[in-house]
Amino acid sequence: MSELGDRVSRRRLLAAGGAAGVGAVSAVGLESARRAGAFRPDPDADRWAHGRDTVAFHGPRQAGVGTTPQAFASFVGLDLHAGATRDTVRRLLTVLSDDAAALTQGRAPLGDQEPWLAQNPSRLTVTFGFGPRVLALVAGDLRPDWLRPLPRFSVDRLEDRWSGGDLLLQICAEDRLTVSHAQRMLFKDARSTTAVRWIQEGFRHTVGSTASGGSMRNLFGQVDGTVNPAPGTEEFERVVYGRGGCPAWVEDGTALVLRRIAMDLDTWDEVDTPAREDSVGRRLTDGAPLTGSSEHEEPDFAAKGPLGFPVIAGYAHIRRSRTGNPPEQIHRRAYNYDVPGAGVPGAAGDVGLLFASYQADVDRQFVPIQQRLDELDMLNTWTTPVGSAVFAVPPGCTEGGFVGDVLFDA
Amino acid sequence: MSELGDRVSRRRLLAAGGAAGVGAVSAVGLESARRAGAFRPDPDADRWAHGRDTVAFHGPRQAGVGTTPQAFASFVGLDLHAGATRDTVRRLLTVLSDDAAALTQGRAPLGDQEPWLAQNPSRLTVTFGFGPRVLALVAGDLRPDWLRPLPRFSVDRLEDRWSGGDLLLQICAEDRLTVSHAQRMLFKDARSTTAVRWIQEGFRHTVGSTASGGSMRNLFGQVDGTVNPAPGTEEFERVVYGRGGCPAWVEDGTALVLRRIAMDLDTWDEVDTPAREDSVGRRLTDGAPLTGSSEHEEPDFAAKGPLGFPVIAGYAHIRRSRTGNPPEQIHRRAYNYDVPGAGVPGAAGDVGLLFASYQADVDRQFVPIQQRLDELDMLNTWTTPVGSAVFAVPPGCTEGGFVGDVLFDA
Repeated sequence: MSELGDRVSRRRLLAAGGAAGVGAVSAVGLESARRAGAFRPDPDADRWAHGRDTVAFHGPRQAGVGTTPQAFASFVGLDLHAGATRDTVRRLLTVLSDDAAALTQGRAPLGDQEPWLAQNPSRLTVTFGFGPRVLALVAGDLRPDWLRPLPRFSVDRLEDRWSGGDLLLQICAEDRLTVSHAQRMLFKDARSTTAVRWIQEGFRHTVGSTASGGSMRNLFGQVDGTVNPAPGTEEFERVVYGRGGCPAWVEDGTALVLRRIAMDLDTWDEVDTPAREDSVGRRLTDGAPLTGSSEHEEPDFAAKGPLGFPVIAGYAHIRRSRTGNPPEQIHRRAYNYDVPGAGVPGAAGDVGLLFASYQADVDRQFVPIQQRLDELDMLNTWTTPVGSAVFAVPPGCTEGGFVGDVLFDA
Repeated sequence: MSELGDRVSRRRLLAAGGAAGVGAVSAVGLESARRAGAFRPDPDADRWAHGRDTVAFHGPRQAGVGTTPQAFASFVGLDLHAGATRDTVRRLLTVLSDDAAALTQGRAPLGDQEPWLAQNPSRLTVTFGFGPRVLALVAGDLRPDWLRPLPRFSVDRLEDRWSGGDLLLQICAEDRLTVSHAQRMLFKDARSTTAVRWIQEGFRHTVGSTASGGSMRNLFGQVDGTVNPAPGTEEFERVVYGRGGCPAWVEDGTALVLRRIAMDLDTWDEVDTPAREDSVGRRLTDGAPLTGSSEHEEPDFAAKGPLGFPVIAGYAHIRRSRTGNPPEQIHRRAYNYDVPGAGVPGAAGDVGLLFASYQADVDRQFVPIQQRLDELDMLNTWTTPVGSAVFAVPPGCTEGGFVGDVLFDA
């Protein structure tokens, strides 16, 4: 059998296995592959706990928003070359969507010379976001008011190298190698028309390291992301897609705010546990509010301690980040970052949180929360926003289409 | 129950669970923890596939050498501050060994203010290596001849920022977050006496992404590390610990050579599959030699093709890296690296291989192989060594001791 034939049948097989989930390679596919000599069933197949798991790429909405966060994320900001036209963007989105459609299903895209690195999609998702320039080219009249840099906050120390961008690729998977390969494939097809503005890599616990379904911990050791609308709920539909709340800029579209928040672990180290808990308003042990006994219990902001002071302080992060105003909610999908630096004697390095927030309307949901935190939040003592970018996240596409095609056709 | 008491009991419990492996929390421990309200058994505990797996820290040999490679590695080169004495090194090794002994068993070390990040050791290992300066301070008369920079090879383009170092910490685990936390804890205790010279982070497939036990793939898509002595075999004992071969510098000690090998994916992209396979001498599909049909089959270097040329070319990597000379073997433990760069329009970025090689005698085992590859190896077309460091790896220690203590006492 030819090398090419070998590859094609392997791809088909993996596609079949992937679509149906782990261990679901059909008997028919297996038998034909055996005859072709292209596939040997793995005796350890039960250990492929997520290697062949796939998340659908096609659909009315893009994957990677309501998708349970994978262990690894690479957020990539691309800038279009000067002189890019609407047609440039159409061709770029067409080829990148083709790549993503293949890679996410465990198939090597056209021109992939390392197809073996595409074998383990491990829940790979590729999510596209449009910066102001791309959306202006694609559908200028649809451009939402909030698609611009966020208002300046007093705590911000933003750096250009982590901010802005014309096109966002959010690449997530349970395997770091899968992310690396997917990114490389997408870059190969993006390089003739774009430049890499920034790459921000993040991580959470790997599959099998902690119980599934729990909130992650950040590098301060805090339980992070407790209050988050659950996909499939009315709350999620309202917050992320504007159903019954702030309307989204386009049906099945949403918005991404990506903030790079540096954490000063050196000064954080000087703070003891009670003071740390006081600054957040939650117990470090399990993330329970200081007035409660479990993570998802509602905090009692009115509760007072023996001396008459509030149990959850006025400056505590959870008090400041909440209001009774329903629109002011967001859907978080945060990742830790830890970028090694050399030659810095004893310094803690460049660590922090990639705070990715999805919501239907940035101005009405994200901004008021951030304004309150900017005014007062004890956590600001140890955190500094150093990057900021806002993207319009277009709807998904059907098979044969490309992400954003509905806007071109509109 | 006090916060402190809560923490202590949790640590004890985790320690017990960790030592006995996954899911082995004892009924007694569980019951007492329940009573204390400090621990709720996780309904998804079966999904903690590796989170509580531990690798023993104490023993005649250090862990992390014969240990099956974990998904993530951080190699850290530290430099002692000027004026460091033998006693400085003793104190440093004592405290770092204490930290490593705790962290590897899922316990928070002394002074850990984020003990929750120590809960998932995920097969964490911390391996210590001594550069020339540390070994001279500790046991000058034991210093092996090979503990110096490697001879200069013509292919080398070494950079100081990836080379040398007084003390190596090799930190490996199946969870990236575990590595990050362990590194931070070790740094806190090393910062008063050392500076970070370099940090080199690498990755392989995560647990559950591929079948266990397979060789890894590097970013060229090649199956990497096929020829490697298996721990527990006579070959491994000879190659790594000098039993019946080149003697090790000290009993149960070995040597680590760490080479940072940059891969030029851009020019590699210009090469088609047959040429790629020709350059290595192996099939890309499954790593089988071009004369065989499975990865671990012996290559037939004498085989000729229809035109009378050797099937495995004279310049092929697998031909050049082998001799019939038994001492010239090494034990590899390589990791991929992919460091994001910004502002580089379309470039492939800084990607390559952290080639970690363990052997009893660097000069008699590693150097001759590298000399042959330096003279001729088609893979040199696309690879460039940019970093190089050699460390003497001391024996392990018993409980209450520290890594290297046998050398102090000698």
